[in-house]
Amino acid sequence: MIHLTRRERFNAAHRLYNPKWTDEKNKEVFGNCSNPNWHGHNYVLYITVKGELRDDEGWVIDLKQLSKVVDEHVIQKLDHKNINVEVDFMKDKRASTEVLAIEIWNVLVDEIKQLGADLHCIKLTETENNFVEYYG
Amino acid sequence: MIHLTRRERFNAAHRLYNPKWTDEKNKEVFGNCSNPNWHGHNYVLYITVKGELRDDEGWVIDLKQLSKVVDEHVIQKLDHKNINVEVDFMKDKRASTEVLAIEIWNVLVDEIKQLGADLHCIKLTETENNFVEYYG
Amino acid sequence: MIHLTRRERFNAAHRLYNPKWTDEKNKEVFGNCSNPNWHGHNYVLYITVKGELRDDEGWVIDLKQLSKVVDEHVIQKLDHKNINVEVDFMKDKRASTEVLAIEIWNVLVDEIKQLGADLHCIKLTETENNFVEYYG
Amino acid sequence: MIHLTRRERFNAAHRLYNPKWTDEKNKEVFGNCSNPNWHGHNYVLYITVKGELRDDEGWVIDLKQLSKVVDEHVIQKLDHKNINVEVDFMKDKRASTEVLAIEIWNVLVDEIKQLGADLHCIKLTETENNFVEYYG
Amino acid sequence: MIHLTRRERFNAAHRLYNPKWTDEKNKEVFGNCSNPNWHGHNYVLYITVKGELRDDEGWVIDLKQLSKVVDEHVIQKLDHKNINVEVDFMKDKRASTEVLAIEIWNVLVDEIKQLGADLHCIKLTETENNFVEYYG
Amino acid sequence: MIHLTRRERFNAAHRLYNPKWTDEKNKEVFGNCSNPNWHGHNYVLYITVKGELRDDEGWVIDLKQLSKVVDEHVIQKLDHKNINVEVDFMKDKRASTEVLAIEIWNVLVDEIKQLGADLHCIKLTETENNFVEYYG
Repeated sequence: MIHLTRRERFNAAHRLYNPKWTDEKNKEVFGNCSNPNWHGHNYVLYITVKGELRDDEGWVIDLKQLSKVVDEHVIQKLDHKNINVEVDFMKDKRASTEVLAIEIWNVLVDEIKQLGADLHCIKLTETENNFVEYYG
Repeated sequence: MIHLTRRERFNAAHRLYNPKWTDEKNKEVFGNCSNPNWHGHNYVLYITVKGELRDDEGWVIDLKQLSKVVDEHVIQKLDHKNINVEVDFMKDKRASTEVLAIEIWNVLVDEIKQLGADLHCIKLTETENNFVEYYG
Repeated sequence: MIHLTRRERFNAAHRLYNPKWTDEKNKEVFGNCSNPNWHGHNYVLYITVKGELRDDEGWVIDLKQLSKVVDEHVIQKLDHKNINVEVDFMKDKRASTEVLAIEIWNVLVDEIKQLGADLHCIKLTETENNFVEYYG
Repeated sequence: MIHLTRRERFNAAHRLYNPKWTDEKNKEVFGNCSNPNWHGHNYVLYITVKGELRDDEGWVIDLKQLSKVVDEHVIQKLDHKNINVEVDFMKDKRASTEVLAIEIWNVLVDEIKQLGADLHCIKLTETENNFVEYYG
Repeated sequence: MIHLTRRERFNAAHRLYNPKWTDEKNKEVFGNCSNPNWHGHNYVLYITVKGELRDDEGWVIDLKQLSKVVDEHVIQKLDHKNINVEVDFMKDKRASTEVLAIEIWNVLVDEIKQLGADLHCIKLTETENNFVEYYG
Repeated sequence: MIHLTRRERFNAAHRLYNPKWTDEKNKEVFGNCSNPNWHGHNYVLYITVKGELRDDEGWVIDLKQLSKVVDEHVIQKLDHKNINVEVDFMKDKRASTEVLAIEIWNVLVDEIKQLGADLHCIKLTETENNFVEYYG
């Protein structure tokens, strides 16, 4: 069993906001992260897969295929987009780093199984000072 | 003469957009950077000042004072904001890294002179793959 | 269950030293790390907590509250300090990265429980070439 | 129980190549990574060991001894070398990051046990965008 | 006048070698950098251009066009290649970081002029501990 | 003319302190940087030299010789030391980043001339948020 990690990046706008709450409550809980005019980040995404070594290739998974799947299902949908209003798999969800990592997991878990490996971890970095990890 | 650089960070939303152009023209020139729903970045700002060494303190400028001035005049106005719609010194300007660096220079140059040093360079990093430098 | 990590920094002086040993023995075991005139580091601290997602907020823990607790109980006590002589929770202990990580865990574990999450890991980086991780 | 990680680096040439396959098949599977004229990388290696804290020293393992063992058995054999043709423990193996990490584990596991700790993980970074981890 | 920098990367094999010298002399001068079996690096390339701000676009140069020119004339020729034997603009030259930076300048200077800006600096990083800069 | 930069590191203790001032005045000007029990940093030093390309070697200066000179005259004297009390070339001087950079320049300028190149810049990083540059 070996783990392989691919790093990808996307730049997106978002705000933290709960539609069940008043604007005052949103401001109180989320502070300037709830700015109605949005702000944004250079997100860094680490996709870790695990599996047995394939002897002929010497790898766990074809990194080019992994990168293609991540690009098609995740990066194309998030890069230069507004997470709250434009991303189908984030509809009606909190646009937090935690929820985004979980939903990226949900989007990728079956796709990666079809490539012959198991998704192990989604790590998502929002700033140099905070990141989340989701293991399913 | 010695140069001192302070690094600061802000997270903001923006889009590249020229109001004199049609949406098609904006899309053609700026690509997905002109997304009307915005996107954003973790900007990294380097403020370089120069001056003579002050013998008693052993420094060019008081780093705490420099940081305070930059925070008050630049970071507070940009962090968790939308550069196109909320930042007074960017009103009616292109929200590009180049223009933003120039306007940050304009905001800071006199403030830093009052601290007893000269502004030498504004370096602004938009992503890990591109940055601009402005020397006035 | 999701993991969230906050990164913090502090700059401190220390020396490796065992008072039960002679100076020669300290020098032999710890080399120039036992310099009686001290040396120091830019320590980087990663606090990882884990817990269930809170649906309303979309997070595991309020990052601002976590940061405040870490600042009050850890950073204020270590930053610009001498680890061997000024830090209450390091009194009579080896000022190694390992021991420091363990004691930071001990200081934070109950505080973080009160914020509604569990401390998962303390990672402490001493230089770009070495770090320790403690999981309790 | 505490984990300690040491970071080391080596620069080497390699190619992905399976001698059981035709050149066309190698090209098809490995792309430009199979270039017969070689290419190379600045590899970054993280060796994580785990063990009980030794009270007198305040550490898990003597970092200088760990570094010496890694240098002698791994870095000296890989740095400024061709992984496919000059490295004894890679003979007749795929020169992939995965296989290299596994073989570095095999070389180090007993050596580190003799230093009084257990090897926990070999992490090997090939580029800023991909790395592997092996836990034995 | 404003400066814009684009960062690009390529992974390549090379050796330091002067064909006018004996193997012993090469070994004496270049050490293990002259290994006849090659070694390699993850090179990082920073292309800095300068020019006047174009008011309509708010930029100095179209970053996508700059990136395309650098990719076509530099990255495609160097990435996953052997610098000594496969790169036309390095034929019969020392495969040092210095010479490589100068030749990349020579390849790009006119191309960038056609994009409406001036090449200002080629910075080439060979390892995390050494880089060269060439200003023409 | 080409510029070459070598990166080196040292970990040291220091305090900002002016013996002509009272302790209160030192505290007022330097804040917690004047802690009498010291604090410390992982300093990162960049030595940039410039000169003509030597055709036979393809370099400006022998990087190994440069590194040896810097190690002997600078790193050995600063690493794991107390800058205020143990470093001959800092005796009776402010232990600030600015003064340290200037004195490292003074120590190295003639040594590098003897290697056949000119010292161009000393860049010294104290934390990830501040650094100084001295050009002589």
